[in-house]
Amino acid sequence: MTSRRHLLTGAAAAGLGAAAGAGLVAAADGQAPAPAAAAASTTGTAIVPFHGPRQAGVAEDPPAHAAFVALTLPAGTDRRGLARMMRLLTDDAARLTQGVPALGDTDATLAPLPARLTVTFGFGPGLYRAAGLQPPVADLPKFRIDRLEQRWSGGDLLLQICADDPLTVAHTQRMLIKDARPFAAIRWVQQGFRRSPGVQAPEHTQRNVMGQLDGTANPRGAEIDPAVWNDDGSTTLVVRRMRAEIEKWDILSVADKENAVGRRLESGAPLSGTLEHDEPDFTKLDASGLPAMPDFSHVTRARVTDPTLKLLRRPYNYDGVPNAAGHPDAGLIFAAYQKDIARQFVPIQQRLADKDLLNEWITPIGSAVFAVPPGCAADGWIGEQALT
Amino acid sequence: MTSRRHLLTGAAAAGLGAAAGAGLVAAADGQAPAPAAAAASTTGTAIVPFHGPRQAGVAEDPPAHAAFVALTLPAGTDRRGLARMMRLLTDDAARLTQGVPALGDTDATLAPLPARLTVTFGFGPGLYRAAGLQPPVADLPKFRIDRLEQRWSGGDLLLQICADDPLTVAHTQRMLIKDARPFAAIRWVQQGFRRSPGVQAPEHTQRNVMGQLDGTANPRGAEIDPAVWNDDGSTTLVVRRMRAEIEKWDILSVADKENAVGRRLESGAPLSGTLEHDEPDFTKLDASGLPAMPDFSHVTRARVTDPTLKLLRRPYNYDGVPNAAGHPDAGLIFAAYQKDIARQFVPIQQRLADKDLLNEWITPIGSAVFAVPPGCAADGWIGEQALT
Repeated sequence: MTSRRHLLTGAAAAGLGAAAGAGLVAAADGQAPAPAAAAASTTGTAIVPFHGPRQAGVAEDPPAHAAFVALTLPAGTDRRGLARMMRLLTDDAARLTQGVPALGDTDATLAPLPARLTVTFGFGPGLYRAAGLQPPVADLPKFRIDRLEQRWSGGDLLLQICADDPLTVAHTQRMLIKDARPFAAIRWVQQGFRRSPGVQAPEHTQRNVMGQLDGTANPRGAEIDPAVWNDDGSTTLVVRRMRAEIEKWDILSVADKENAVGRRLESGAPLSGTLEHDEPDFTKLDASGLPAMPDFSHVTRARVTDPTLKLLRRPYNYDGVPNAAGHPDAGLIFAAYQKDIARQFVPIQQRLADKDLLNEWITPIGSAVFAVPPGCAADGWIGEQALT
Repeated sequence: MTSRRHLLTGAAAAGLGAAAGAGLVAAADGQAPAPAAAAASTTGTAIVPFHGPRQAGVAEDPPAHAAFVALTLPAGTDRRGLARMMRLLTDDAARLTQGVPALGDTDATLAPLPARLTVTFGFGPGLYRAAGLQPPVADLPKFRIDRLEQRWSGGDLLLQICADDPLTVAHTQRMLIKDARPFAAIRWVQQGFRRSPGVQAPEHTQRNVMGQLDGTANPRGAEIDPAVWNDDGSTTLVVRRMRAEIEKWDILSVADKENAVGRRLESGAPLSGTLEHDEPDFTKLDASGLPAMPDFSHVTRARVTDPTLKLLRRPYNYDGVPNAAGHPDAGLIFAAYQKDIARQFVPIQQRLADKDLLNEWITPIGSAVFAVPPGCAADGWIGEQALT
């Protein structure tokens, strides 16, 4: 396959990228960006290429802020209307991600600091049906643990907007919604965060709102391709809103938390080992003769060894406004990329739904699935293969 | 006056600060921190001293993320209960700001990256009344432009939580609310953001969600003291939620936006000048013989020359979830510090309410006033002067 980077150099020379001036091109191949990319002087101007055979916003180290925007198509939407919408939104995304105002940008002064901005488009089952096509993704089966709310579920079109700066995310969200609005209604918006740029070195696993190191077992570098990308440059995305039952979690002892997860809270090491990246040893017994890795711990139940069955998790924390009594509204926007939802995501989620100690402290309250079409060249648009 | 820095060195040596390890002490005197403070390796560990004659979180360069938490005291609250609450919350804040878990911290793993965390306490009029004291601050008069909503207004106690990392803000908010809950109910929470650390050099003025450079005329360095601090180390805070009528703003031409503000959109220069920090010249006429600075522009109306009458603005952007039709819910959490609300804030707000072109595009929907008591020594607590 032609390398993404190679194509992108061409696109940049052709115009868009050049306008961004001192932009630094961050790694787009799933490797952590060089430490220099996180330094003060380049955080704002860092650019992730938009054009290429695969969409950006999947394999890159996740930026600090994200907005997931799901839209609903009105009845009567047809393939021609979808194509017009996607041409327009692709053009907006191609410009904004390179630090260039959108064509109809009403606040052009907010465009020049993209801060690794990516815009990734996902197509829900309803978009394919509107286009008279067989959807390549299907809604998840209902799991025992689900307490899904309509207001966080479903969607015909997803915009995943990620950047290392929250003002850049806000501006991009506003410009894309302004242009999507004639074609579709807002279904839900989920805004999330990770650590700010520079707070941790990119190679260190981040903690989530529950205090857990989250993402230790994620595929990295060359492990990403066989798990995530189809030959045509497409992938799929599951977005689940996982409410943390954080006040119940808070009253657990550290040992109980560690048993539920299967890892040490401080180091992230599996209970069978001593370092975060030690492989869990499911045969190891503890001093009392019981398995060191509890059978029903989250790590034990989620475990996958076949590299083509792994998920690329790209979770963001959310922290809403607590209620009058002070109870938090916090949790995870759990975003997972994989080649095939039925083959990769569903079996893992089924095992976790059947028996996972962590279920007592996390509740799925939203769920949506999207096909993520291939990327496009500088003269193309996202979705052109399916919609023309 | 004993220098804050001096007192703080003592406090750090006495225990709390020392536990934070490699923490970098950021400037606490209103000067921008040295560029090194924004670099990758120290963003997470940077520490703002907590103890001293003045509270932190006022004069420092504002961190990227903030939560403003307003609480309501139940009927029957008395001075002894308030003292217990403030001893507890002061202890939490003193620890968490130094990267040390709170005494009852249920997620201690989230404490070690304070990222310039500050916790600033404000006392509303109701807190003084509960304590049997005459309130030193009074609710603002009603302004013509106000469209205040109860859900964003008032409050007996304010926690202003600021840090360069959103996970740190979330954890601190959770721990403080957990400890405040037995004493008070949540009245409102407003979460806001500025540019991420490192996206802009600290000496550069930031843009807000409307695309304006916001804060050009703010007092800086030695100008802060005469505007903000009373001799006893106290100050006052006004928090106004300003909804941006952003879709009406978006359809203005750049020239119309510039007339409303009185500054160039791109450079921030006053319409009478060429550079951002040029002094506006209200006598200058343009080519058609009209004042270069329109009489009703925001800058013209807000103008203050007496340095003791200036406000220290510390605004944060908010960007909520748009409605189904895609209309944004965005604006500013306008936080302003000054010695005396009646002498400094009210006249400016009155002039703006009477005649300010910008009124058409910003609407005050929330308002609250707080006295900000002096800081405290390592063996003291915030509010001890009033409540003992």
